[in-house]
Amino acid sequence: MPELRQNVATREWVIISTERAKRPEDFKNKKVKKDVPSHIDSCPFCTGNETLTPPELFRIPDNAPSWSVRVTPNKFAALTDVGNKDVWKLNGIMSKANGVGHHDVIIDSPRHNGYIPTLTSTDMNNLFSAYVRRFKEVSQDPRTEHVIIFKNHGKNAGTSLEHPHTQIVALPVVPSHVRQRIEEAMQYYDSHGQCVFCTIRDEELKLSDRVIHDSEHFTALVPYAAYSPFNIWVIPKRHAASFGDISQNEISDLAKIMKIIISKLHFGLDDPDYNYIIRTVPVGGCNSKYFHWYIDIVPRLTKMAGFELGTGMFINVSLPEENAAFLRSVKIPD
Amino acid sequence: MPELRQNVATREWVIISTERAKRPEDFKNKKVKKDVPSHIDSCPFCTGNETLTPPELFRIPDNAPSWSVRVTPNKFAALTDVGNKDVWKLNGIMSKANGVGHHDVIIDSPRHNGYIPTLTSTDMNNLFSAYVRRFKEVSQDPRTEHVIIFKNHGKNAGTSLEHPHTQIVALPVVPSHVRQRIEEAMQYYDSHGQCVFCTIRDEELKLSDRVIHDSEHFTALVPYAAYSPFNIWVIPKRHAASFGDISQNEISDLAKIMKIIISKLHFGLDDPDYNYIIRTVPVGGCNSKYFHWYIDIVPRLTKMAGFELGTGMFINVSLPEENAAFLRSVKIPD
Repeated sequence: MPELRQNVATREWVIISTERAKRPEDFKNKKVKKDVPSHIDSCPFCTGNETLTPPELFRIPDNAPSWSVRVTPNKFAALTDVGNKDVWKLNGIMSKANGVGHHDVIIDSPRHNGYIPTLTSTDMNNLFSAYVRRFKEVSQDPRTEHVIIFKNHGKNAGTSLEHPHTQIVALPVVPSHVRQRIEEAMQYYDSHGQCVFCTIRDEELKLSDRVIHDSEHFTALVPYAAYSPFNIWVIPKRHAASFGDISQNEISDLAKIMKIIISKLHFGLDDPDYNYIIRTVPVGGCNSKYFHWYIDIVPRLTKMAGFELGTGMFINVSLPEENAAFLRSVKIPD
Repeated sequence: MPELRQNVATREWVIISTERAKRPEDFKNKKVKKDVPSHIDSCPFCTGNETLTPPELFRIPDNAPSWSVRVTPNKFAALTDVGNKDVWKLNGIMSKANGVGHHDVIIDSPRHNGYIPTLTSTDMNNLFSAYVRRFKEVSQDPRTEHVIIFKNHGKNAGTSLEHPHTQIVALPVVPSHVRQRIEEAMQYYDSHGQCVFCTIRDEELKLSDRVIHDSEHFTALVPYAAYSPFNIWVIPKRHAASFGDISQNEISDLAKIMKIIISKLHFGLDDPDYNYIIRTVPVGGCNSKYFHWYIDIVPRLTKMAGFELGTGMFINVSLPEENAAFLRSVKIPD
């Protein structure tokens, strides 16, 4: 019989479709991926083409002639960094606000094929340090209400530029979807006196069947009510609502576990398209006891159709426990 | 400057990206669509192959040897119609329920290429009558909490079978996304003393620039905060929370306006992939004063990437007013 599972943190139900269930191997990428060169002359993100991007915000290492990570405004930014965040109410039914904020690109590597599984531990450290530094910078802007960091890897994940990069958007509003997640977490805290994400992490570590990898500061697991095949959460062990609270030691450990998990997906499922998203509290709720930041990794193995658009519910055609067992078993190069 | 617009009914913000904005013509389908035959011997939905589907629930006309619409259970149903809807709480973090409910297929036409723009007014009437009849039937099941009717047209919209069909799912839970929409509508009612959807429809008719077509019983418009290019709402003029409340006259009028709107998309944008969804109140809230059923049409012209997954916010690279003006101008055959 198919099973409905509820995510206790978001109260979203998921259909685990046992009738349609596929084995982990069935999700392997069938597309023949072409060999990606390490340098493309016309690519604005490749070394030597630094003048093709808007003026650099910073690089790591700072001021070094050869960089590991570069951060620049997005040439096709969805928001502008000039202007006030005025909000207007028109005719009773129309609310609008200036589209002010930040929309930047974090270039993961100078190499055109510098995908996460190929990065050194120093590269990975630099990448996640760049995330934190830019996150803190844009959070300082008084217009910023919420910051989202995300990566689109591959066409099904919505990427338009092949060169590996991450994006960061600082919004002048709190999206209602984010507000609702915060409210659900607050209600859980109210009923149980503890953070729902801390509870999930501790219970999952005890149960262990959905845990993929456990490090000093983070736990990577397939959530009980995973909304898509191989959906993964990387949850910090220390309670912190905001990604900006991360310590130097935690950054190094996060860089390590993220390389392990993305490599397991890469080698286990033949480089699937995926997104990852850093889910964090809005800027105004930094020290919150009830929200907990984490990274949500979403391999894009199925399509969103009318059912998902209309209900916000997902049909997962795989078993979270099987996904986790499969990923635990995937061997990756040292 | 880019603009943020808020949907007053859902409180969701959308970025209207003027920097990236495209003209309506740029959204035309570039894929060369192959000629689809009217019959395929192996297609389970084509006439003559009625034994290839699970046993028919009903057909229109009733018991007629040659049918216009057929309704059958989905062979690959996400839910089973046998069993109780027991809910279990396990280890504090896991809630699960039996995956019971209904998941049926409404075969739009006996013709393999019987797409909406090719249907007669009788065919369209039969199709929408079948929606209503099955909606009422599954709503009677005491296990049903919420019913969703949706169509996936084309690969980007998630269709797996080419033969035109619609799906109906009766869920044993209310999805949290639906619950949140109801709560927002209730709050609007609480603050303003009137239904937010009635207000939107009346204001939009006065302003007229986002209205595509206005009929006796329905208004078709591009919402002010449309979350994707050419997103369209078809809103009933009479306040009713549940789709099941529709009258015979309204069914005929809905069939007419849906054919007009889908044909305008078909001819104006060269048969784009799309979903449509009937958004209605959960079964338990039938006579609600604050919710209002409507059809949400979503052409699938852009991809959901990390930003959308992480924020629930969308970036619309077109102007709703321009979309509506373009669709008003599209001529369709009588």
